[in-house]
Amino acid sequence: MPQAPSEKALIPFVSVENMMRLIHHVGIERMLVELTDAIEADFKRWETFDKTPRVASHSREGVIELMPTSDGEMYGFKYVNGHPKNMAKGLQTVTAFGLLAQVSNGYPVLLTEMTLLTALRTAATSAMAARHLAPNSAKVMAMIGNGAQAEFQALAMKAVIGLEEVRLYDIDPRATAKTANNLTGTGLKVTPCTSAQQAMEGTRIITTCTADKQFATILTDNMVGTGVHINAIGGDCPGKTELAREILLRADTFVEYTPQTRIEGEIQQMAADYPVTELWRVILGQAAGRRNDRQITLFDSVGFAIEDFSALRYVRERLAGTNFYQDIDILADPDDPRDLFGMLQRSKT
Amino acid sequence: MPQAPSEKALIPFVSVENMMRLIHHVGIERMLVELTDAIEADFKRWETFDKTPRVASHSREGVIELMPTSDGEMYGFKYVNGHPKNMAKGLQTVTAFGLLAQVSNGYPVLLTEMTLLTALRTAATSAMAARHLAPNSAKVMAMIGNGAQAEFQALAMKAVIGLEEVRLYDIDPRATAKTANNLTGTGLKVTPCTSAQQAMEGTRIITTCTADKQFATILTDNMVGTGVHINAIGGDCPGKTELAREILLRADTFVEYTPQTRIEGEIQQMAADYPVTELWRVILGQAAGRRNDRQITLFDSVGFAIEDFSALRYVRERLAGTNFYQDIDILADPDDPRDLFGMLQRSKT
Repeated sequence: MPQAPSEKALIPFVSVENMMRLIHHVGIERMLVELTDAIEADFKRWETFDKTPRVASHSREGVIELMPTSDGEMYGFKYVNGHPKNMAKGLQTVTAFGLLAQVSNGYPVLLTEMTLLTALRTAATSAMAARHLAPNSAKVMAMIGNGAQAEFQALAMKAVIGLEEVRLYDIDPRATAKTANNLTGTGLKVTPCTSAQQAMEGTRIITTCTADKQFATILTDNMVGTGVHINAIGGDCPGKTELAREILLRADTFVEYTPQTRIEGEIQQMAADYPVTELWRVILGQAAGRRNDRQITLFDSVGFAIEDFSALRYVRERLAGTNFYQDIDILADPDDPRDLFGMLQRSKT
Repeated sequence: MPQAPSEKALIPFVSVENMMRLIHHVGIERMLVELTDAIEADFKRWETFDKTPRVASHSREGVIELMPTSDGEMYGFKYVNGHPKNMAKGLQTVTAFGLLAQVSNGYPVLLTEMTLLTALRTAATSAMAARHLAPNSAKVMAMIGNGAQAEFQALAMKAVIGLEEVRLYDIDPRATAKTANNLTGTGLKVTPCTSAQQAMEGTRIITTCTADKQFATILTDNMVGTGVHINAIGGDCPGKTELAREILLRADTFVEYTPQTRIEGEIQQMAADYPVTELWRVILGQAAGRRNDRQITLFDSVGFAIEDFSALRYVRERLAGTNFYQDIDILADPDDPRDLFGMLQRSKT
């Protein structure tokens, strides 16, 4: 008779359903705040991490990426795809899962869905950047692009920097209606708009989050006034940008990890030595963030492995004492580690 | 009430227990033959594949690696660790799992344990190399290093090239006893030996598979006669080799993927332009394999992503019509792909 797998062979797996239960258990806004703090804590120890640009496999239809990192104690990676045409087929543009393992023995300790978790950590990272870069008075945000990320962005800004109103625009009015409907009852004032220009009226934070894989100009130069913070999260792979080049020339640009952002971010439009500031240095007080009320700050966000690491670490801590996971038997664990074959033989019923 | 996950959200997961059931269902020798053929079929279309050296995260204790590849239609990767000191802690030196996904939409189609599967594919790759490089008369193999890989190597050689006898040696006699015991009743003649020299008497195939992470000399020059095939699978990461340099100078060396083997294989002892032949070219008839009975052939095997891809593809095909998997809910799949937040909201009980 096959024996039950030993404890060493089992690792906790968080399914999509369990991730949703965990989010509701913690409360989405509280989870966004805690994630923001978890990411900020890891950005503060930036130099501890092993940093590799993601390993990307590009195809005509999209990209599949592996994003590994390690702090020397734990190792994490995320599998994530980006397929802009998926939506038309009724599939997610981005799906993801991730894994955390112990560096000392290489054994995984957590496997989890990361489609939802990536939406949360992306929003938390945007909120973290806004906490350091947006004008203090910013209570209204324009949200250009009302896809799967939109509500998470709005709620993270509410929970972390006290956003009061979000002004929505998407080229597809159904996307705007979906987002407006989902945000009803969250305490945010929600204003659907019929143009990007209208959405940006009176706002000091502008979030762009559109999905086309092409050089697009979601924002032109004349649309952007002084004293705003631009949170650009849609330009995140080679050939995909959202902002007119002229805006970048007027702004101070902040990035996660420069070598990766030069390939994937808005700054792929600029020269290789275009000046940028890494956000972790602002958080540590080593570089200036917002200096005055007329400055345009741009967070050229592409998503970085450390944010996923923080999210994985956070989920692992948050799972303790809950039942929001199932144990899966993914590791062969013979009694004698040299006797893999014996384990196989003895399993024969 | 949370809805049941849709079909698109589920992917088949093969646990260790189910992998063992699959192996017994197919029969281990038959599975080794089928895997050898699957790997050979993919080596024949070598140039179709995206080839990247593995992405390794090294630490003092070991290494964690991601090994991705793609043939343009499917994408596969393996997570694998190598921690030589694990054995003393009662843990596996190598554990692994892998994933197969569709390139067209980035959606995973299979998640599986790969500790057992890696043992099988490594043995199948050795057997494939021996099929093209070993002397035809080779019916006896010396097996130096009797760890977790040993029985799989012996059975693959039996099933694929008709090996009749295996002569075992390990510095730890308990490892030899374990292997001899496990191979009883398989139809192979098994001869435990008390030295490497004794194990090699009268053999035309020598497999070295030891686990220390150090430059070791398992085989010295005077131990190796002419007309043999050396299947060196233990030297597989930087700083880890098994053969005396002089043996390499007398042998013709065959490798999987040259850039990776120069870093990880026995040839890390040699100059960067030391001549080697990639095995796929031999299989396609573009390069000579064994030319005569006095030649020493060396398969300097380190393990390559295409072999894992072949194994994943094979398992996926073999699973069809069986119940040797469970469906896991790892992909968020809202009805409207833009409405990830709505899916989350509606899941609130």
